Amino acid sequence: DQYSSTSAGPEPGSAAGDYKCIEVSTVEGLNMIKFNRPTKMNALTYEMYGEIVDALEKAAKDEKVVVTVTTGAGDYYCSGNDLSNFTKVDPTNIAGVAEEARKVLLKFVNAFICFPKPLIAMVNGPAIGISVTVLGMYDAVYASDKATFYTPFSILGQSPEGCSSYIFPRVMGFPKSSEMLLFNRRITAAEACDWGLVTRVFPHGTFHQEVSQIVKNYASLPKQSLWKSKQLSRKWSLETLQEVNKAECDVLKERWQSPECAQAIMDFFSRKSKM
Amino acid sequence: DQYSSTSAGPEPGSAAGDYKCIEVSTVEGLNMIKFNRPTKMNALTYEMYGEIVDALEKAAKDEKVVVTVTTGAGDYYCSGNDLSNFTKVDPTNIAGVAEEARKVLLKFVNAFICFPKPLIAMVNGPAIGISVTVLGMYDAVYASDKATFYTPFSILGQSPEGCSSYIFPRVMGFPKSSEMLLFNRRITAAEACDWGLVTRVFPHGTFHQEVSQIVKNYASLPKQSLWKSKQLSRKWSLETLQEVNKAECDVLKERWQSPECAQAIMDFFSRKSKM
Amino acid sequence: DQYSSTSAGPEPGSAAGDYKCIEVSTVEGLNMIKFNRPTKMNALTYEMYGEIVDALEKAAKDEKVVVTVTTGAGDYYCSGNDLSNFTKVDPTNIAGVAEEARKVLLKFVNAFICFPKPLIAMVNGPAIGISVTVLGMYDAVYASDKATFYTPFSILGQSPEGCSSYIFPRVMGFPKSSEMLLFNRRITAAEACDWGLVTRVFPHGTFHQEVSQIVKNYASLPKQSLWKSKQLSRKWSLETLQEVNKAECDVLKERWQSPECAQAIMDFFSRKSKM
Repeated sequence: DQYSSTSAGPEPGSAAGDYKCIEVSTVEGLNMIKFNRPTKMNALTYEMYGEIVDALEKAAKDEKVVVTVTTGAGDYYCSGNDLSNFTKVDPTNIAGVAEEARKVLLKFVNAFICFPKPLIAMVNGPAIGISVTVLGMYDAVYASDKATFYTPFSILGQSPEGCSSYIFPRVMGFPKSSEMLLFNRRITAAEACDWGLVTRVFPHGTFHQEVSQIVKNYASLPKQSLWKSKQLSRKWSLETLQEVNKAECDVLKERWQSPECAQAIMDFFSRKSKM
Repeated sequence: DQYSSTSAGPEPGSAAGDYKCIEVSTVEGLNMIKFNRPTKMNALTYEMYGEIVDALEKAAKDEKVVVTVTTGAGDYYCSGNDLSNFTKVDPTNIAGVAEEARKVLLKFVNAFICFPKPLIAMVNGPAIGISVTVLGMYDAVYASDKATFYTPFSILGQSPEGCSSYIFPRVMGFPKSSEMLLFNRRITAAEACDWGLVTRVFPHGTFHQEVSQIVKNYASLPKQSLWKSKQLSRKWSLETLQEVNKAECDVLKERWQSPECAQAIMDFFSRKSKM
Repeated sequence: DQYSSTSAGPEPGSAAGDYKCIEVSTVEGLNMIKFNRPTKMNALTYEMYGEIVDALEKAAKDEKVVVTVTTGAGDYYCSGNDLSNFTKVDPTNIAGVAEEARKVLLKFVNAFICFPKPLIAMVNGPAIGISVTVLGMYDAVYASDKATFYTPFSILGQSPEGCSSYIFPRVMGFPKSSEMLLFNRRITAAEACDWGLVTRVFPHGTFHQEVSQIVKNYASLPKQSLWKSKQLSRKWSLETLQEVNKAECDVLKERWQSPECAQAIMDFFSRKSKM
């Protein structure tokens, strides 16, 4: 991997070594954020949410960063929220835990809403939950043909986030967005491309090499033009998306405290332990 | 048919037998509304519009209804507005008749805009007019490969309804939405799927069986999660869609009173009688 | 060509002979605007922008015009802004030149935003830049399978126009719209159809004949119904698109005065001269 061995970021504080759950590098304008918990399918702990926000904020400010790419280490792109975030919960303080989770989520999604530079996903394998929903805000999503896209909200008693309740219906229409966001259907890379979530699909064998070259070329384009163009195209929904993010997090906070959600998560672990 | 023989609804007033033009049942959370004028290709009379509104309002309130499905009896899904609604018109009171039609339509479409639970269409055959335009508000549209989608507004001197003037361009873009809504092109189930109106297409032979199983599974999902997620995703356009509905009905009322529309409908019946 | 030989327009001032860069005709309700600088791949000079605006304004007012079609003479549909608009610039008055260009562009795009009748593109070959971006506002886009769609903004140090910064993401989603508008990817007619910019693709050999018949039929539909339906469907974004147009032109004006843009255009001509 050409990126993992290079030194990162513009400030001492952003060196790759400072993060535990992600790996960050910047080479010739190309900033790469790699989700790096491969043994946990790159599931997002609170610490990892925070590190990604920090990396995005640094990339936004760093004049040397032209474009940012996210990808996953190992076979998965990202398996979404680490459910152990919920199982470790103190049962006497569910409200407090739900409020903490709400804040983490709100800040995480807001970092994507406000990111002022081109943002590209290299979806190297299965993507689940919030790693799928935020894709609607990316400027390009390149997927391996082994990637799948899965947002099992209702089966876990939860509800959509990442601004997907607003963006997905506007890109693919309600008849498709609800099949994903309400009815838990896992879609293939080819379907995700048809439905507007993915830009292009590549054979897994050449995925890394082909897409690495593509994003490297993007990082050499006139940068002010890229940034101004992106900011122009986002201007029309910036405030709405911030409002959407708040409303989604509020509904989720309520869901997390509901008996229905607790039961659904227990059922999930029960099914899992039987597999 | 597993649904038609079952008793319906939560209140005495909603029993299947109370409706003349539709058949309604609820089994294990799955509420099924079947358009039931097969000899008239399930064309919508004023009475039938009213019965569908009534069935939707009851389903919305009934705690036992988790999801609602609409489908058609016989070969057609629904052939849209029954043009005999217009041919029976008293020529001395066209304005009054147009106003009555406007009210019927406004209320019908509003029932779809406000429906708070997942709504699924099993499009078993050709769909025409308003039965097509309201599909943009459904949460899943499963179509037989014998289904077609046809909105012949301008050829009848009329104009789009069902919030399609707003939703269709936002899902498929103006270059495709206008070909349907302005230029009367009938599209296939596969095209409707490509264009965002249909979620998935099934071979006609296994359509009923496959989709019945799918929607049955949806009705067993955590229901508060389904309802809250749907309401969250609709919140962003609820007021706009109500405004769109009003404007569409106002334009149609004007169209219905125009010589151009009267001529176009006469031409239609004249062509039909020659076939 | 059945259109080029016919006399045009309703007023003396709109006769085909009055235009230098376009050819205009109206036959049985079908108004045809042909971009007519085939030796320059129909690139848009300031004069040509002005003539197209004039032709659209006359078509809007002319009761005899039911629908308007744009197409290109020769192999290209339109190669976009003629870069000689910039190379002839007086280097002591870049601000003045940028302001003039901004005004020309603002007026041109506004003519598409406000056009009150069905507007159809016959894309006979490659389309570049602003001839692509305004397609999002058309009511049908019929493309030859030799057509391509290319918006090389960032490679020329520029930014999107034609309301594409707003419309493209809403039709195809950001992951696809940014690949076109930020990352300069040229797409085929088939891709443009998948992505929502094109209604249908035709084999080049029969393109002209097939599409001429289609649009001729459209011009015979009840015209008030067509116009009212179009105006209804555009009402929901009319003011927003005017605001978007202004913002896009303001950003471009700034871009045109930037060293980055000047350098990018010089690099472009340098690469071109080496080919």
